[in-house]
Amino acid sequence: MADLPKSIQINEEGPREGFQFEKGPIATARKIELVDALSRTGLKQIQVCSFVPPKNVPGMADADEVVKGFTPAPGVCYTALWLNEKGLQRALAASRLEVRGSIALTASETFLKRNQNRTLRGNIDAQRRIIEMYKQNNVPVERGSVMAAFGCNFEGDIPVSRVLDLAQNVMDLAAEYGLQIKVFSLADTMAWATPGAVKRLVGAMRDRFPVLRLALHLHDTRGMGIANAYAGLEMGVDIFDSSVAGLGGCPFAAHKSAAGNVCSEDLVFMCEEMGIDTGVDLDRLIDAARLAEDIVGHPLPGSVMRGGSLRALRGHIRAAA
Amino acid sequence: MADLPKSIQINEEGPREGFQFEKGPIATARKIELVDALSRTGLKQIQVCSFVPPKNVPGMADADEVVKGFTPAPGVCYTALWLNEKGLQRALAASRLEVRGSIALTASETFLKRNQNRTLRGNIDAQRRIIEMYKQNNVPVERGSVMAAFGCNFEGDIPVSRVLDLAQNVMDLAAEYGLQIKVFSLADTMAWATPGAVKRLVGAMRDRFPVLRLALHLHDTRGMGIANAYAGLEMGVDIFDSSVAGLGGCPFAAHKSAAGNVCSEDLVFMCEEMGIDTGVDLDRLIDAARLAEDIVGHPLPGSVMRGGSLRALRGHIRAAA
Repeated sequence: MADLPKSIQINEEGPREGFQFEKGPIATARKIELVDALSRTGLKQIQVCSFVPPKNVPGMADADEVVKGFTPAPGVCYTALWLNEKGLQRALAASRLEVRGSIALTASETFLKRNQNRTLRGNIDAQRRIIEMYKQNNVPVERGSVMAAFGCNFEGDIPVSRVLDLAQNVMDLAAEYGLQIKVFSLADTMAWATPGAVKRLVGAMRDRFPVLRLALHLHDTRGMGIANAYAGLEMGVDIFDSSVAGLGGCPFAAHKSAAGNVCSEDLVFMCEEMGIDTGVDLDRLIDAARLAEDIVGHPLPGSVMRGGSLRALRGHIRAAA
Repeated sequence: MADLPKSIQINEEGPREGFQFEKGPIATARKIELVDALSRTGLKQIQVCSFVPPKNVPGMADADEVVKGFTPAPGVCYTALWLNEKGLQRALAASRLEVRGSIALTASETFLKRNQNRTLRGNIDAQRRIIEMYKQNNVPVERGSVMAAFGCNFEGDIPVSRVLDLAQNVMDLAAEYGLQIKVFSLADTMAWATPGAVKRLVGAMRDRFPVLRLALHLHDTRGMGIANAYAGLEMGVDIFDSSVAGLGGCPFAAHKSAAGNVCSEDLVFMCEEMGIDTGVDLDRLIDAARLAEDIVGHPLPGSVMRGGSLRALRGHIRAAA
């Protein structure tokens, strides 16, 4: 276990993942309530919403109101997602958000067409347009990513070599514009990864791009989320996207049922119990997870919010002794 | 990943874990239906029921009928659980079951008192009585185990040294009666384990008892089940208890909500995707998981039965190409 990081950074994506996926409608005030609850947990980065066309994702129609409504906590970075120039302009107009660019390619053309109506080549051109807009708006770009990096429900397994090639494309695009990528995210968008695949791909990325800090975005649709995160930790990965209570899922991934991101409080539980610092107060995060469940009005997949934290239990045991 | 086993043995415990835990009543015919469905999956060992007092576990009152009713499949070993002499006699009377003894100690005295109304010392004496009965009935005893090996909801963390001492007690008891323990099971009865703890305890057991083949019994109450199984695989563990659809939970473990064993089809999915043979047809096991959900009448925690197997998906993708 020599490679386990001492601490990790968690990008909380519950509000964005969840409210784009839930059938809703969910009142704007309740979305704000969840963001405010998450702000009190010690999380350092919270993705608040996505700026996407309301006709595609009705649950994000009130994104601007959510951003205006929450109470920013000191030291917390609030982010949003966008997929095109229009979305970026909305994010830039919202002064409370930290707007950081990324160069994002996708390993499956079929998924890309469904998700963003682009070909692989068209997506590279689209990234050029977005990078130009980042430059015009002085938006820093230090992050690259490959979506569907482990497999695709429409195309099947994704070879490691294809992900490496796409990562090289990202690095080349960055170089073309004088940008330096520091963090690279591998997204298991459709939950094809197993711990073995995580180790293989992370290892190959490390070999090819030793200067990059790697991040994982892991969906839990097939129950592998926490195991995949553990495999990432063992490879020294120290940035994870996750979703409070396991909120969310991708509306374009052809899954019939909930397919949320790896659950934040389960991830925090595993890390803290293994001595890996997350900066998060697990019991407060569990409270936020229960709030999320109350807001969506149905059970969410998180486990620790039901099983309880061991820190709390140890406290009860000590008090009873 | 050099230590991953080439194949694993799965002890399916869903019928026993589930039907002892569900509020019920569940019709005997439906319990039999699940056992028969599991018999068609390729699973080699299925724990059908437990022979425990009906006043303690009403869901097992029809254990004898279940054993009489199912259709044994060739090559499948059907087992049962018992905790005392009376239970063993019922198992011996049921000729369809393979009756194999084990020496089982528990790392938490508080839990032991609640679960079996015994002290640690009293439990060693009880094991002597059970071993004597095994010998009288020519029941082979090749298995040892420690329950609550990672932590206890009443006592807190369990030190590795205590588990090693208890394992030594088991080995001493075996030696006292001229028995040879071959398999040793570490049970995370109350879901305190993390992958790091699994590696630590399995490593310590291997160092101390290098001849033993180790098994893991992992509860998923805090969402760590599959990650813990992966950690076990990395340490070369090749026997796992698991529960179809994640059925079950221990009625004495002080959890308010479902606390099932690690989910069989999620475990099979992970193993098969990583090239570890389980002998199980995943799609048939998924069918059995859906049947289990139908039988209990509420959602069960398994993921792959919702997310779907990748083998099936790869077939659809190939067919569409």
